[in-house]
Amino acid sequence: MTDNTSNSSRPRVLSGMRPTGRLHLGNYMGALYNWVRLQHDYECYFFIADYHALTTDYADPSLLKQNIFEVALDFLSAGLDPEKCTIFVQSHVPQHAELHLLLSMITPVSWLERVPTYKDQQEQLREKDLATYGFLGYPLLQSADILAYQPDFVPVGQDQVSHVELTREVARRFNYFYSPKRVVSGEGSAVITEPDPDHLLLPEPQVLLTPSPKLPGTDGRKMSKSYGNSILLSATPTEVAYKMQSMTNGGQRPTADVPGDPDICPVGDMHRLFSSEQVLTQITTGCRTAAIRCDECKLLAANSINHHLAPIRERREELEDNPNKVWEVLYLGRIEAEKRAEQTMQAVRAVTGLSRDRSGVRLERAASSVQDAEDARNLSSFKHWWDSPAPLLSRNLRELWKRDLVPTGTPLKPDADGVWITQNNRRIFVATATQSNGNESWNFSVKPKSYEMLVLLCWGSDYRLRDFVVPQKLYLAQWVAAKKQAGKNNIEFSVKHEGGKYVLNLPGASGIDVTATEAGYQILGD
Amino acid sequence: MTDNTSNSSRPRVLSGMRPTGRLHLGNYMGALYNWVRLQHDYECYFFIADYHALTTDYADPSLLKQNIFEVALDFLSAGLDPEKCTIFVQSHVPQHAELHLLLSMITPVSWLERVPTYKDQQEQLREKDLATYGFLGYPLLQSADILAYQPDFVPVGQDQVSHVELTREVARRFNYFYSPKRVVSGEGSAVITEPDPDHLLLPEPQVLLTPSPKLPGTDGRKMSKSYGNSILLSATPTEVAYKMQSMTNGGQRPTADVPGDPDICPVGDMHRLFSSEQVLTQITTGCRTAAIRCDECKLLAANSINHHLAPIRERREELEDNPNKVWEVLYLGRIEAEKRAEQTMQAVRAVTGLSRDRSGVRLERAASSVQDAEDARNLSSFKHWWDSPAPLLSRNLRELWKRDLVPTGTPLKPDADGVWITQNNRRIFVATATQSNGNESWNFSVKPKSYEMLVLLCWGSDYRLRDFVVPQKLYLAQWVAAKKQAGKNNIEFSVKHEGGKYVLNLPGASGIDVTATEAGYQILGD
Repeated sequence: MTDNTSNSSRPRVLSGMRPTGRLHLGNYMGALYNWVRLQHDYECYFFIADYHALTTDYADPSLLKQNIFEVALDFLSAGLDPEKCTIFVQSHVPQHAELHLLLSMITPVSWLERVPTYKDQQEQLREKDLATYGFLGYPLLQSADILAYQPDFVPVGQDQVSHVELTREVARRFNYFYSPKRVVSGEGSAVITEPDPDHLLLPEPQVLLTPSPKLPGTDGRKMSKSYGNSILLSATPTEVAYKMQSMTNGGQRPTADVPGDPDICPVGDMHRLFSSEQVLTQITTGCRTAAIRCDECKLLAANSINHHLAPIRERREELEDNPNKVWEVLYLGRIEAEKRAEQTMQAVRAVTGLSRDRSGVRLERAASSVQDAEDARNLSSFKHWWDSPAPLLSRNLRELWKRDLVPTGTPLKPDADGVWITQNNRRIFVATATQSNGNESWNFSVKPKSYEMLVLLCWGSDYRLRDFVVPQKLYLAQWVAAKKQAGKNNIEFSVKHEGGKYVLNLPGASGIDVTATEAGYQILGD
Repeated sequence: MTDNTSNSSRPRVLSGMRPTGRLHLGNYMGALYNWVRLQHDYECYFFIADYHALTTDYADPSLLKQNIFEVALDFLSAGLDPEKCTIFVQSHVPQHAELHLLLSMITPVSWLERVPTYKDQQEQLREKDLATYGFLGYPLLQSADILAYQPDFVPVGQDQVSHVELTREVARRFNYFYSPKRVVSGEGSAVITEPDPDHLLLPEPQVLLTPSPKLPGTDGRKMSKSYGNSILLSATPTEVAYKMQSMTNGGQRPTADVPGDPDICPVGDMHRLFSSEQVLTQITTGCRTAAIRCDECKLLAANSINHHLAPIRERREELEDNPNKVWEVLYLGRIEAEKRAEQTMQAVRAVTGLSRDRSGVRLERAASSVQDAEDARNLSSFKHWWDSPAPLLSRNLRELWKRDLVPTGTPLKPDADGVWITQNNRRIFVATATQSNGNESWNFSVKPKSYEMLVLLCWGSDYRLRDFVVPQKLYLAQWVAAKKQAGKNNIEFSVKHEGGKYVLNLPGASGIDVTATEAGYQILGD
């Protein structure tokens, strides 16, 4: 699945951020700064997780819309380039809610209850009532956010690893139920299968651990909006200088002539993140020898931060002059994201019975239509085909079958090697044979490959076509054995009509009764 | 909300059915038969609840697609007329999943755990693992199914009443958080409000209890697919006759000459539902006097059922000749349903901060734009308006304000009585006044109606416009009092600039400081 549906040769990456308002330097260095770097090497989807904001702040969403805009502005200012990555708002892409609902069907409540952040957050945010169905489902919504894009990697900080782990578990369970299977061991009724790793519907994404460097707030604790110790990414140079002056030095240097240690100083942390080697050496030596005052050191840190923020401010000013640009980016990003997510959903709907077309539906036909189908099976007007060269005969029978016998609602796409692909992306091989002797017996010769369905067209000496649509589960184990045995040669097998049954005989295996699969078009849509 | 958005003058009705395969006479008489009657008098939405099928049958959805088709065929055969009602498949309308996710934010887990069917079904379907998040959320999905259409009534049998009750609770909670409020009592800071019943976002639907007559299966128990005692709506006349012959008579009449009691006989139940008065009298008398044999009585019942099913069979045959018609109905129904559900969702998104346009977003403008706005407030080039007739002046000021001062992303629609409607459906009134004397004081005269926002345009003798965008919560209590006092007259009030503040003086109330609302365009999008 991954191979077929990738829009790009670069590995795919997806990450999101809650719209909590204007971002501060902590948010920036913890995520956005890394994202800007990722966009050059990965196919990136970055989204603003507005539904997630509602899981905790449903009681007052009055700031949500504004916060979405502010975060989008910060994304673009920080250097996310809509030409290089897809930026969108979660709720604008309906596939997130749809996949969330579908995954909810297979996800045990207990998996959600044991996510570590579930109880933690309920404790931490006691003033909010978080005993809601939505809050319980929050990590599952994250799984849907991720899996809708079938990404290879999810860049997260250490604190989010457990959520990606849940995502992988959910994907595994989904694949267990719905992905195409391959044989692991055993044969016949003792066969053990597993989801075919080459055709997983929801591949398990890997964690891409991103550096989240120590970025202190002005009070020395972790920078956080709720602590009131943050410096905004959109702060003016003066604001940055002012905030930095108010930053603690960790309680060192009671007077300017007492030396200090920049390694245990929050201002030192800022230098290590933002200052050049030269400035870093200057303040390190200066601090340890009391040759520099703290206010001087803080001014140098502010200068370094402002130097880093200069191009970000420039982009922000451009956008403030043209705020419609932000909405345009979100609008175009939504279209792009929807396209990718819809690709996943079409495959997901197909295997869960929710595809929106006619595929896979069988009409118990009225007598007249049954007669039509019977007529189509009578090939007496094509007697002249009987002695055609094998490839030509095969081609003709296949096309005739497809045209006159396959119901119109079940389109088949040609693929390489004479394989056809059903609407649900199953590979089917249509093999043909004419009756080889007086007995009703047909000999086939087929390339030793894997097919998710076999169609056997048996043309009898009565000029009537018998058509068997055989699902993989009936022949998988024997086929695997026959493939191994055949090596590079074709697999030779037969269908025989004996004792009122049609029996498929694969080499080295006991016969498989395929009588019930005659005219089994309904499974073409499965 | 209901009044504004109704597409029809008929009360709206919504109901759904799980696609469990071809319907039997029990399904038919319990729901479909009633729906066919409702479609003439109500604006009806009927859907096939495929997501709900997955809540219990997620482990094997292989029959789902076929079952959807069979149920649609049964719907149409039974007489649901796509010209009269909207027929669609739940999963085809993404608004169901979207509203489900949004409602999940506000719904306590405990509400779902205590739905009577939750534990019951887990008990009854022990062979299935129903400890899933999706199964827990199943009644909430039903609430979303219903509320997305803002129906007046939900036709259900007695067993579903508790689900509609949950739906009403969820709607109430949603309205509590997000619907516009009105004052119940108190004033000032002691004011008590409630969701305005005339402007509820999700009106609480009423249960429309539909008759579910006693319809026995062939073994005398309730007709049910899982008991194997059912007669399909699509059964042939012969099948009906055959099934009826196998029906129990409740263990009466060991021999044909022993009389019986049709009132305690399952075959009697069938007669009471399907037979004419004449036949009913015939079998009642015949049974009590042993003048009719059971097999004769059963044949008469089969005849009555077949008579009832004749037009249904005729419609089915037509559809079987043209199965694309079924998909066309579902496709067109989906478009119709989506249109109605999207109407609800736009209102829902607007109040939860998820609207997809720019409305309500404020850009902290760069200096140049602030200057532009200041320029727009300088009306010295419109000095000649000062002495215009009041209505003309008012009109000009209102239009100028809307054109030059309201941010472009905040469109206002005109409504009756000079009221404008914001994108989030709030009624705002823009009142104008010119400075009335040497002091900075403006006198207003406004119709005694309810507005969800007041905009006060105060043109000063310095030719500068002061514009106050006042949210209802600031003036609601005093306004209600002033309205009462004014009776049919206009409410007369003033805005005064005194002590550095702008104060709104409503009759009989203390002044309201509106200084902070100057240029408060951001709330126009709230």
